[in-house]
Amino acid sequence: MTQAHWIAVDWRADGLTVWPMGDGDAVLDQIDVPLGAPVADISGFCAAILPHVEPFLSGKTPVVVSGAPVALGAGFVPVPCKPAELSPVDPTGGDPRLSIHLIPAVSQGQPADILQGSEALIAGYLAEHPKFDGILCIPGPDTKWCHISAEEIVSFQSFVIGELIASLAPPLTNDFDRSTLLNAVQDAMSNPHRMASRLATLRAEQVLNPTGATGLAAGIAGTVIGVELAGARAYWLGQMVVVLGDGALSEAYLAALQDAGAMVERASVDGLIPKGLTAIRNGKPEAD
Amino acid sequence: MTQAHWIAVDWRADGLTVWPMGDGDAVLDQIDVPLGAPVADISGFCAAILPHVEPFLSGKTPVVVSGAPVALGAGFVPVPCKPAELSPVDPTGGDPRLSIHLIPAVSQGQPADILQGSEALIAGYLAEHPKFDGILCIPGPDTKWCHISAEEIVSFQSFVIGELIASLAPPLTNDFDRSTLLNAVQDAMSNPHRMASRLATLRAEQVLNPTGATGLAAGIAGTVIGVELAGARAYWLGQMVVVLGDGALSEAYLAALQDAGAMVERASVDGLIPKGLTAIRNGKPEAD
Repeated sequence: MTQAHWIAVDWRADGLTVWPMGDGDAVLDQIDVPLGAPVADISGFCAAILPHVEPFLSGKTPVVVSGAPVALGAGFVPVPCKPAELSPVDPTGGDPRLSIHLIPAVSQGQPADILQGSEALIAGYLAEHPKFDGILCIPGPDTKWCHISAEEIVSFQSFVIGELIASLAPPLTNDFDRSTLLNAVQDAMSNPHRMASRLATLRAEQVLNPTGATGLAAGIAGTVIGVELAGARAYWLGQMVVVLGDGALSEAYLAALQDAGAMVERASVDGLIPKGLTAIRNGKPEAD
Repeated sequence: MTQAHWIAVDWRADGLTVWPMGDGDAVLDQIDVPLGAPVADISGFCAAILPHVEPFLSGKTPVVVSGAPVALGAGFVPVPCKPAELSPVDPTGGDPRLSIHLIPAVSQGQPADILQGSEALIAGYLAEHPKFDGILCIPGPDTKWCHISAEEIVSFQSFVIGELIASLAPPLTNDFDRSTLLNAVQDAMSNPHRMASRLATLRAEQVLNPTGATGLAAGIAGTVIGVELAGARAYWLGQMVVVLGDGALSEAYLAALQDAGAMVERASVDGLIPKGLTAIRNGKPEAD
């Protein structure tokens, strides 16, 4: 087994993704580690990853972690800031075979907001596109809209979206009904105050007319995204927008933004987090 | 044990409430029956209630049920309709000791909507207030706004509210922070399109300033209710509104509507469902 120079970790509420990194910051492997119970401290974190990374270890190995829970003390760096220049914080405790470095979250005062984990993704995107100037839209449980300029996160805003959609409807699949989605987006953008009644109407239509009603998931996702686009206008109107994500939800954002007349393209997140953690570890964005 | 003349049942997603009814339609007892797995047919329903009602049975006993799942075939009665005149439907199957009567749901074509269970509550309220003319607001997972006139449900509209609040925040308790709630309601009524970002801001404030941030539950409930009040204006502006419900969510609606200048009072639902099922069983509202 190839030895890892260091280990990159993305910590999310539902689990960890672990990348042992080799020569020239090459990704040696990608390991998904589900977290049954929430991990509350560094010892618990080390215990969770050790069985998976042990074969890659030789001596004390650095572990660079984005998205760690606030309680572990990585702290916050306020905007504006360069994600590649976030200085990791070294917590006490853990395991003698691992040297843990936690990347701080990015915070904003007005409006109050937190980027926790997405900063690694953004650092990875900027490592590939160091001259990018525009808006990154990162769909997820909390969708993030981030204004990027001169390698800095200038400002950002979170919208509770994926979480709302997941609580209301079956998951959106890649074959979602595009016209149902776009109609719902348009209606919700024009009438955001009708959101909660539109959601009830969509569900009732499904019951009263099950053969005629198509695309409950697309209708509900479109309604929630439409309200968001109305509230996020300052982030996309007249801006260059990149939807950073894969899967049906990102495709839904792309379709909705295109339909609303935005300048928008989609980029895959594949490989971006280890690339971003590499940039942060090296203290600057990679050259082109 | 007193014998029951008949048995009233309220069927909700999470369980049944069962009232054995005696002489003069007096409530003999109230029994809550949680439903672990969803009950799919009349036999399953009888099996769920029999252990609880057996001591009250003598001969074949009528069971009048509101809120039964659509799949059991009670069907729909469109608005406008008098809830006390909904004709129960008798399904096949079940148990020889019970004679099951399912109350149909109330439906609406434009906008598509369904009242399932609330019709018994409304019948109970109208049994006590037969001359009521105005709006009943029934807070719940789906909050219902019902226009009542001449003992009829004229029209209604559902808003997915309690379910949203429950998915986003810890439960609202009776000591909720009133000014936090009302500020959030006002902000959301004026800017419904900012709902999803306000929710993210409230959560971020809780993390960034845990000692200063008060009332996450009140802020989130207020935001969601404010968007609803903006969308439900036709139902409360210049109308006589009765919030029909107990507990913190109903108090939140009362406070929000009062603050918005509506003519509003609150009424308890205590005892109303068996009273409504009695009215439906007797085919007309009870006299004053």
